[in-house]
Amino acid sequence: MPAPDKFFKYIDDNADTFIKRLAAAVAIPSVSGDGTHRKDVVAMANWLNSELKQLGVDTKLVDLGKHVMDEQELDLPPAILGKLGNDPNKKTVLIYGHYDVQPASKSDGWDTDPFTLVVDEKNGRLIGRGSTDDKGPVLGWLNVIQYHHQNNIPLPVNLICCFEGMEESGSEGLDDLVRKESKKGGYFEGTDCICISDNYWLNTRTPALTYGLRGLAYYKVTVAGPGRDLHSGTFGRTVHEPMTDLISLLGTLVTPQGDILVPGVDDMVPPPDEDEKAIYAGLDYSIADIEGAAGGQIALSSDKVAVLMGRMRYPSLSIHGIEGAFYGAGGKTVIPAKVSGKFSIRLVPPQTPDNINPLVIDHLEKAFAKLGSKNKLNIEAAHGGKPWMADHRHWNYEAAKRATKIVYNQDPDLTREGGSIPVTLTFAEALGVNVLLLPMGRGDDGAHSTNEKIDKSNFIQGSKLLGSYLYELADVSK
Amino acid sequence: MPAPDKFFKYIDDNADTFIKRLAAAVAIPSVSGDGTHRKDVVAMANWLNSELKQLGVDTKLVDLGKHVMDEQELDLPPAILGKLGNDPNKKTVLIYGHYDVQPASKSDGWDTDPFTLVVDEKNGRLIGRGSTDDKGPVLGWLNVIQYHHQNNIPLPVNLICCFEGMEESGSEGLDDLVRKESKKGGYFEGTDCICISDNYWLNTRTPALTYGLRGLAYYKVTVAGPGRDLHSGTFGRTVHEPMTDLISLLGTLVTPQGDILVPGVDDMVPPPDEDEKAIYAGLDYSIADIEGAAGGQIALSSDKVAVLMGRMRYPSLSIHGIEGAFYGAGGKTVIPAKVSGKFSIRLVPPQTPDNINPLVIDHLEKAFAKLGSKNKLNIEAAHGGKPWMADHRHWNYEAAKRATKIVYNQDPDLTREGGSIPVTLTFAEALGVNVLLLPMGRGDDGAHSTNEKIDKSNFIQGSKLLGSYLYELADVSK
Repeated sequence: MPAPDKFFKYIDDNADTFIKRLAAAVAIPSVSGDGTHRKDVVAMANWLNSELKQLGVDTKLVDLGKHVMDEQELDLPPAILGKLGNDPNKKTVLIYGHYDVQPASKSDGWDTDPFTLVVDEKNGRLIGRGSTDDKGPVLGWLNVIQYHHQNNIPLPVNLICCFEGMEESGSEGLDDLVRKESKKGGYFEGTDCICISDNYWLNTRTPALTYGLRGLAYYKVTVAGPGRDLHSGTFGRTVHEPMTDLISLLGTLVTPQGDILVPGVDDMVPPPDEDEKAIYAGLDYSIADIEGAAGGQIALSSDKVAVLMGRMRYPSLSIHGIEGAFYGAGGKTVIPAKVSGKFSIRLVPPQTPDNINPLVIDHLEKAFAKLGSKNKLNIEAAHGGKPWMADHRHWNYEAAKRATKIVYNQDPDLTREGGSIPVTLTFAEALGVNVLLLPMGRGDDGAHSTNEKIDKSNFIQGSKLLGSYLYELADVSK
Repeated sequence: MPAPDKFFKYIDDNADTFIKRLAAAVAIPSVSGDGTHRKDVVAMANWLNSELKQLGVDTKLVDLGKHVMDEQELDLPPAILGKLGNDPNKKTVLIYGHYDVQPASKSDGWDTDPFTLVVDEKNGRLIGRGSTDDKGPVLGWLNVIQYHHQNNIPLPVNLICCFEGMEESGSEGLDDLVRKESKKGGYFEGTDCICISDNYWLNTRTPALTYGLRGLAYYKVTVAGPGRDLHSGTFGRTVHEPMTDLISLLGTLVTPQGDILVPGVDDMVPPPDEDEKAIYAGLDYSIADIEGAAGGQIALSSDKVAVLMGRMRYPSLSIHGIEGAFYGAGGKTVIPAKVSGKFSIRLVPPQTPDNINPLVIDHLEKAFAKLGSKNKLNIEAAHGGKPWMADHRHWNYEAAKRATKIVYNQDPDLTREGGSIPVTLTFAEALGVNVLLLPMGRGDDGAHSTNEKIDKSNFIQGSKLLGSYLYELADVSK
C-alpha cells in the first residue's frame, strides 16, 4: 500500500511548522570539530532527543566516552538511539543521521549569520549551517513521524533511529556503538535494511539514490624548527624556514589537473570498462551543472564522463589549509615557527586508510628527506574511513525507486558519491544488511561551504519521499 | 664633554618609573596593520605626544591623510614632530622612532597577554608587544629628555623628533612628509645627522652600530576559481582547486636552503671579495648565537660567515602564510574558493622593489601559465622599500662608537641588518646627511614574534647610551 494522500497533504499543510523546527535546529551551533562548541553539540543532542520523545519515539542518549581534541580531553556528544514500533510482521528499517555541523562563521564569507535560518522566499531556499547537512534530512524523518503520531497511525515499518553528533569529525565513538548494538541482543537486532539521508542529488533536477561513497584519509603534516615565530628580516636566509619546507611537501601531492602524485595511490584503482563508462554517460548531469554548483568555469575536463568519474570512481586529493602560518588580511613579515598542512584523500575501492596511510607517510618522509632541512617533520593520519558500495538492485533500493517515482514522478539517478559517510560502511559490515543512501538536498546546496542551503521544495518533497519510502518498504518483496 | 655622572645615576635611580611608562605604552595595542586597531594607534599617538609635551618638547601632530586598507578607507595615524633646543652653535640631530606595533594575540602562542608588560625580574626581562620594537627605544629618548627637563639642563645638541605610527605597515604617508620637511624652510632644515634606534644587536652580548639595512618587497598572490568554498567530497577531482595552484606557485619561489628561485633575483647581487668576508668573520657572532635566538638548531650552514652574509648582504625570501584557506585546529574538508599567499623578499643593493617586482610578477605569471589551470591569478606587489647603506667612518658613527665604549666598556660590532626600516633611506636621500642606526635591544628580543621582550638592562643602559651619544655628538669634530 503506497503512502496515503492524507500523509502528503499533512506534509504540505504543515510546511511552515516544519521550517520553524529546522530554524530552531540551525540556531544551535553544534560544530563538532571545534572544542569550544562542544556544549552546543550536547545542547543539540538534548533538543533533538526531546523532539523525538514528544513524537512518541522511545529514545535514549548513549554516552560515547571521551576523546582528545587539540590537546584537550572532551566528552564526546551522545548518540541518540530510538525505536518506534515493534511489530514482528513488519520490516525493521534503521535510519541514521547526524545533528552536528561543519564550522561556519560570517567571516568565512557567509552573506547571513550561518546559525540563523534565512527563509529566502524569492528563491525558495532555506539558508543556514546544517540546513542540508544534515539537520534538514534528520528533521525530515521527524516530519514523517509527526504525521503518524498526531493521527495515531502506526508506521508501516518498525523504525530504529541512530543519530550522532560527531559525523563531521570522523564519527568518533560511533563505530564501537554500532558494532556492539549490531550483535545478538543488541539495540539494532532485527534490522532488515538501513536508510541514510546525508547526501545530495547530482544536479538540481533529478532525485538520486546513491550506492557508493568515497572513503577518506585526512592528514596533518607538521614542520617545526624555531622555538617561536621569527622576524623575516632578522632570520631570513639564516635558518631553515618551516613554511618553505611545508610548501615544498604539499607541492608534491597532486597536480593542478587532480592527478595524485603520491606513488601507488592512483595506480591502485582499476580503470573502468565500457559498461561502467556507459553508466556515467547516462546520468542526468552536465559540465554546466558542476560548474554552476561550483560557481566557476573550472571543471577539470570538458568531458562529462571524465568529470563524473573524477568525482565518483577515482580518488581525489585536496589541500585544505595551513595551521600556524599567518592567515589574516594585510601583511605580516613573520617566519612561522611551526606549521601544519591539512590535506585529505577521498578513497575508492580497493583503497582504505590502512593501505593508503603507509604510501602517504612514506612519500612525505622521502620528500622531506630530499629537502635537506634541519627542521622536524611530523605526520598525523587523522580521521578516515573506507569507501563503500552497495547492491542497487536490492529490494531496499527498489522501495526507494518506487517512492521517488510517486513523489517526483521520475526515476532517480543511480549514483556513487564523492563524499564520505564512514559510518555507512560500519553499518553495512556490522549488520550485514543493505544500506540505501536516500538524499534529500540538491547538488548545489553547499554542504561544508558558505551559504549552505536546502531548497524548501526539497525539504518538503523530501519529507514526503522519506515517508513514501517507508510505505514502499513495507510493500516490496524481500 | 662626555655625559655627566649625574645623568647616568638619574637613569639608574628612575628605572622603575621608566618601566612603568613603558608598561603604559605597551598597554595601547597600536597595531597599524589591522584596521580595527586604528583607533588604538591614534590613542598611542596622543599618549606619546602628551608625554613629549610634558617633558618640554615643542611638538605637533601632523595629519598624513587617508589610505585604503582591506577595501576600507582609513585615516592614517599622525606623525609626531617635535623640537627641543635651537642653538645655532650646537649640532642638530634628528631622531626617528615608531609608536605602532606588529599584530599580536595570545592565540599566536604568547605565554602572557601581549599588551600587558610583564616584568620578569628573575630573567631581567620586560615582555610585551612593542617592548623592543619600537616603544622601548622611543621611550629611551624620553628618559634622556626627562633628565635634562627635570634638572633644567639644556641638551648638548638640538633635537628634532620624528615619530610615526605606520612603520609596521610600510610607513605609509611618511615619505612625503619627510621629503617636504627636508626641503629649504622645512621642519627638518638644519639637521646635521640622523639617529634611528629601531634594530638589534647581533647577539646578546655586544652592542652594535648598524650601517646597512635590507629593503623589502611584499607580495600577495591570489588564486580564485569557485564562487564559494566547496566540499572536497563533492568537488574533489572535478574542478581546478585554487589551493593546489597556489601551493605549486609558492613552491617555485625558494629552496629549503634559502636560494631564491625567481630568475634574476639572486644573480643581481655581486659576490663578496675577501675583504668583505673578513668583516663578517670578525663579528662577535656564532652559529650558536643565531640558533639560540631562533630557538632551534636550524641554521642554514655551519659556516658563520655564510650565515651572517645570508642575513646581511644577500636577499632572502620568506613565505608568511595563506589568507582564505582553512587555518584552524582540527580537520575541515573544504576546497577554499579564493586563497592568497603572502611572501616577501628582503632586498640588498642594487635591488629595489622597482627592479625586483617585474621579475617576481613575470616569474609567477609564467609559473601559473604552466599549471594549465582554469582558475584566475592576481598578483599584488604590496608595500616595499629599498635597501640602504651608510658610511660607518662618519663622525656620527664615531660619536656612537665613543658612547658605546663609555656605557658598555666595549667597542660595538659594525653590522648590516637583515630587517627593513624603509624610512631610513628616505631620510638619507631627502636630507643628504649621515644616518646612524643605534640599536637598544638584543638579537633574541623576538621583534614581530611571540613573547617579544627587551632586557631591562638594555632598556636602562640603552637609555644611557642614547644620552651619552648626544654628548659625544656635541664633542666630535665634523
